[in-house]
Amino acid sequence: MFKLYYSPGSCALAAHIALEEAGGDYETIRINFGSEEQRAAEYLAINPKGRVPALVTGKGILTETPAILLFIAQSFPQAGLAPLDDFFELARLQAFNSYICSTVHVAHAHGVRGYRWADDPAAIAEMKRKAPETVSACFELIENEMFEGPWVMGETYSLCDPYLYTLTRWVKGGMVDVTKLPKIFAHLERMEARHAVKTVLDSQFG
Amino acid sequence: MFKLYYSPGSCALAAHIALEEAGGDYETIRINFGSEEQRAAEYLAINPKGRVPALVTGKGILTETPAILLFIAQSFPQAGLAPLDDFFELARLQAFNSYICSTVHVAHAHGVRGYRWADDPAAIAEMKRKAPETVSACFELIENEMFEGPWVMGETYSLCDPYLYTLTRWVKGGMVDVTKLPKIFAHLERMEARHAVKTVLDSQFG
Repeated sequence: MFKLYYSPGSCALAAHIALEEAGGDYETIRINFGSEEQRAAEYLAINPKGRVPALVTGKGILTETPAILLFIAQSFPQAGLAPLDDFFELARLQAFNSYICSTVHVAHAHGVRGYRWADDPAAIAEMKRKAPETVSACFELIENEMFEGPWVMGETYSLCDPYLYTLTRWVKGGMVDVTKLPKIFAHLERMEARHAVKTVLDSQFG
Repeated sequence: MFKLYYSPGSCALAAHIALEEAGGDYETIRINFGSEEQRAAEYLAINPKGRVPALVTGKGILTETPAILLFIAQSFPQAGLAPLDDFFELARLQAFNSYICSTVHVAHAHGVRGYRWADDPAAIAEMKRKAPETVSACFELIENEMFEGPWVMGETYSLCDPYLYTLTRWVKGGMVDVTKLPKIFAHLERMEARHAVKTVLDSQFG
């Protein structure tokens, strides 16, 4: 059975939803960011990066959302969460998730965790000021150039959908006016109507 | 035949080396960052993100290094660049490459392209000041927690090696004193002794 370490609402939400959609046995372990549990020795032994998610499997521990998501899809192929038999389509999926982790998540982090890249409070404030502009540019690029519809990759729900949803959830009503991005706004509503998403949100926040 | 768009010494070096190691037919097209060719309409039609690498395949265009690398390994399985039949090992490989793109490359970018996340020159200068500290922390984590040796994943050369090498090349002698990181320093020398790496460096800089 897989064990997912997460913090409520963090990017670990994507892996949590994917596990729920896959229909396999898993349990979740909450890490309390409020008490900095992610930097305690006990958790650093699981993930030396001090971040979530971490997925404990029978073979060892995995980190990094795009890698964990692909592992879930390959572990539960009957769930159809990725085009595992088509290298090109799989690479398109991985490219989308790579963009989310390396560009969109990073742009968002400048609004909330600028201390990662600067010590001076004025510089951190400047990053926070600019973050809505850079995050909005990312979401406009997704809306205009990447999103196929009705799901990220087209007709078929995939690993990209819980990952995009996780980020959309962060920015809606704050950094980005998602009501002006009709495809992404419809995707948000489509995701929140899914049974697996409701189950996971209840588990993390209920 | 694949076509790789690159800028010399950029992160596209990783995909270029992987293509050379794979032994397939490919050609390269140089994008001149000096004249901002990556933001010209002609290139934006290939990659709307205005970045390299982009790989043109018979089925369409791919972006994002971790996705392109996996596609190369799957397209040339005889080259043995990834443990394609072992989901867990493949996820470990993807986790390493995801860490490179979302954390190490991003940390480095704060030293050279801070304008992505701030407009104020003082904030950009503060990011540049702190970058060697954050990049060094990433390389120490790789040295102490991730690198198996003699290659990143252990006994077998994989997609992780050209990607780590690309970043080590950026930071050596500048942001990070890699001579103090014996595994990574030996890896740098081991990479530069490879025929494929010499061929690619000659092609990009010769």
